[in-house]
Amino acid sequence: MIANDLLHFGLDEYRERLRRVWSSMESRGIDVLLLTDPCNLYYTTGYDAWSFYVPQCVLIERGSDRPVWIGREMDMQGAKLTTYLEPQDIDSYSDDFVQAADRHPMSRVAELIRARGWGRARIGVELGSYYFSARAMDVLRAELPDAQWLDASLLVNWVRVVKSPTEIRYMREAAQIVQGAMTTAIERTRPGVRQCDVAGAIYQALIGGTREFGGQYASSPPLMPTDERVNTPHLSWTDQPYRPGSVTNFELVASRHRYHMPLGRSISLGQPSPATATLERALIDGIDEVLASLRPGMRASEVESLWQKAASRHGVRKRARCGYSIGIAYPPTFGEQTISLRPNDETELVPGMTLHLMPGVWQQGASLVITEPFLVTESGCEPFCRLPRKLFLAE
Amino acid sequence: MIANDLLHFGLDEYRERLRRVWSSMESRGIDVLLLTDPCNLYYTTGYDAWSFYVPQCVLIERGSDRPVWIGREMDMQGAKLTTYLEPQDIDSYSDDFVQAADRHPMSRVAELIRARGWGRARIGVELGSYYFSARAMDVLRAELPDAQWLDASLLVNWVRVVKSPTEIRYMREAAQIVQGAMTTAIERTRPGVRQCDVAGAIYQALIGGTREFGGQYASSPPLMPTDERVNTPHLSWTDQPYRPGSVTNFELVASRHRYHMPLGRSISLGQPSPATATLERALIDGIDEVLASLRPGMRASEVESLWQKAASRHGVRKRARCGYSIGIAYPPTFGEQTISLRPNDETELVPGMTLHLMPGVWQQGASLVITEPFLVTESGCEPFCRLPRKLFLAE
Repeated sequence: MIANDLLHFGLDEYRERLRRVWSSMESRGIDVLLLTDPCNLYYTTGYDAWSFYVPQCVLIERGSDRPVWIGREMDMQGAKLTTYLEPQDIDSYSDDFVQAADRHPMSRVAELIRARGWGRARIGVELGSYYFSARAMDVLRAELPDAQWLDASLLVNWVRVVKSPTEIRYMREAAQIVQGAMTTAIERTRPGVRQCDVAGAIYQALIGGTREFGGQYASSPPLMPTDERVNTPHLSWTDQPYRPGSVTNFELVASRHRYHMPLGRSISLGQPSPATATLERALIDGIDEVLASLRPGMRASEVESLWQKAASRHGVRKRARCGYSIGIAYPPTFGEQTISLRPNDETELVPGMTLHLMPGVWQQGASLVITEPFLVTESGCEPFCRLPRKLFLAE
Repeated sequence: MIANDLLHFGLDEYRERLRRVWSSMESRGIDVLLLTDPCNLYYTTGYDAWSFYVPQCVLIERGSDRPVWIGREMDMQGAKLTTYLEPQDIDSYSDDFVQAADRHPMSRVAELIRARGWGRARIGVELGSYYFSARAMDVLRAELPDAQWLDASLLVNWVRVVKSPTEIRYMREAAQIVQGAMTTAIERTRPGVRQCDVAGAIYQALIGGTREFGGQYASSPPLMPTDERVNTPHLSWTDQPYRPGSVTNFELVASRHRYHMPLGRSISLGQPSPATATLERALIDGIDEVLASLRPGMRASEVESLWQKAASRHGVRKRARCGYSIGIAYPPTFGEQTISLRPNDETELVPGMTLHLMPGVWQQGASLVITEPFLVTESGCEPFCRLPRKLFLAE
């Protein structure tokens, strides 16, 4: 491992990560792990670039602290710059493999796997991950017929669920940034102001960050549906002005060294309807109940039922999961894809886990998003943000 | 088809798109097309939401103007809101399929394919597309053993390469936005200013847009490496201040109704080195040559050699492709993945095609990015932007 000032963690932390990855590989009978999820490339090697739109991977042999990076030729320099890898462990395919009809970069990866003597190995692949296409897998299967393929989807994601002190520090910094951006949204959302101008100001706050540190591009844009779009999750802004009486659900997320911190709040331009006011109380009571009652050792499903029980006293029930694990992210999601706060998820919560309690409810007549990201501690849990939990009002 | 004020194109244009898709399906012997690329969902149905982080698809039966959308239950409302689809053609899987270890949304898609009588059909799938995982394909193969699978990667992308007048209008609007954002970059990049603050101002310009219309989230963040990172493509900003004497390569992209317009310029904080000045002349001569000499009927490879020939007079040669087709985009790329300006791409350029001439060169000692997106016209080509082609200087 080569020391590198641009790494955001010490070499010891990377070594410890590799040890935990090897241990998980061993328990699944995996000799070599072929990682394609950009979050897992970043976590294991530090590699950080907007290059995941072309195939790239990191290969980890169990027991070796010299992972191999393979990507596009022009991205090798980025791999040298952002990782601890030795130059001879950084390999590439030439540019004529990029988006070509007659060849695929995974052929070159297969060649390198054979050259390293792993052609008959038990190779773990992230079958369910982003940026690993069905075609990529077909090429690997065809060109390495003697390899044994094991599904290692989420193997590294599960190694990532308990955060180190440095990781938690970056998440606290991201929390400061996202809280500042939400404050901007609350200050700027007024009747007659164009939605795109509020979105622009939010981006500026998310990227400019604080006086001490800046933000990075996040996995997801601000989601901020309003008017007839407010009952729909996953929509963003338009260039129309905000209308008096409208409600807007802001879901923002900040990134600090790729550690993501989401936060959701709703803003009403005028007095909310009785249905909205009831929903507000339900959401807040649910969050208060979770933050007060959560203890390490509880299961994810128990946390969900804490929330549902408190909300049900107001006649509210959420059909979708009400939270999930968070940490490193690249587009298209800041969810870690591991723990979900929902029935049947029996994961035991332990100190150092970081989750987003996300009881957004969308239903005809009323929809609100009030959320709270939190850290599981030795004695309970601690929210990352300090913004009042309420429906914000403006005129 | 249901008329919908939120659609950005008339129903006639969607009908014409479907006709062209059916024709391509017929020539490949495809009965039913299963689309997963969010660009192709948007192009064929209007569907537009940040929901592609979970599996979703559009099914098109050849000859039917009633595509079927299948996604997550909470996103059905978004499908109703943003498309022309009939409510009975919008279907979903429940939330317990989301990121679950024991089930996969494609099982539900397979069930719906059987229910529609397509269980033995010749089904085209986008094997190489983003957001269609190897696991998703494995599930489909296992659950629809009597279907015949054909690779339909890029089928719709190729239908998209020639733009309609409305598409070109949106691209011209995106060009106005990206030019404004680049002007912001040129005005704000000064020694001592933090990179993240310039990035924040760029985002505000990209999203706030012009007085007449706003921008949308783009497929890619601003890329703007500087200092020791300048020789590396695909890196973004840090929170460090700009240094006197440094060069920064700005690659920005704006989105208007998901039509993307990229633009690249470099900014030097001080007099450039002789090597940089030579590179500048090579890039500009190459662009001038292409814009002056390009004629419809030329092949993509000929355009590349026009550029290389002009640049080679300054001793410069670009190893990677020097451009590609552009249009609709979602993360992670604004390239259409069809035409590449490189040797062996024999695509004939015809009026209505839109490309990004992207002769960025990264090499030790000098690296610059000066790019020009353009439209192929009846008589030649026309750049979308009107920003001087040069290395901008500031002190």
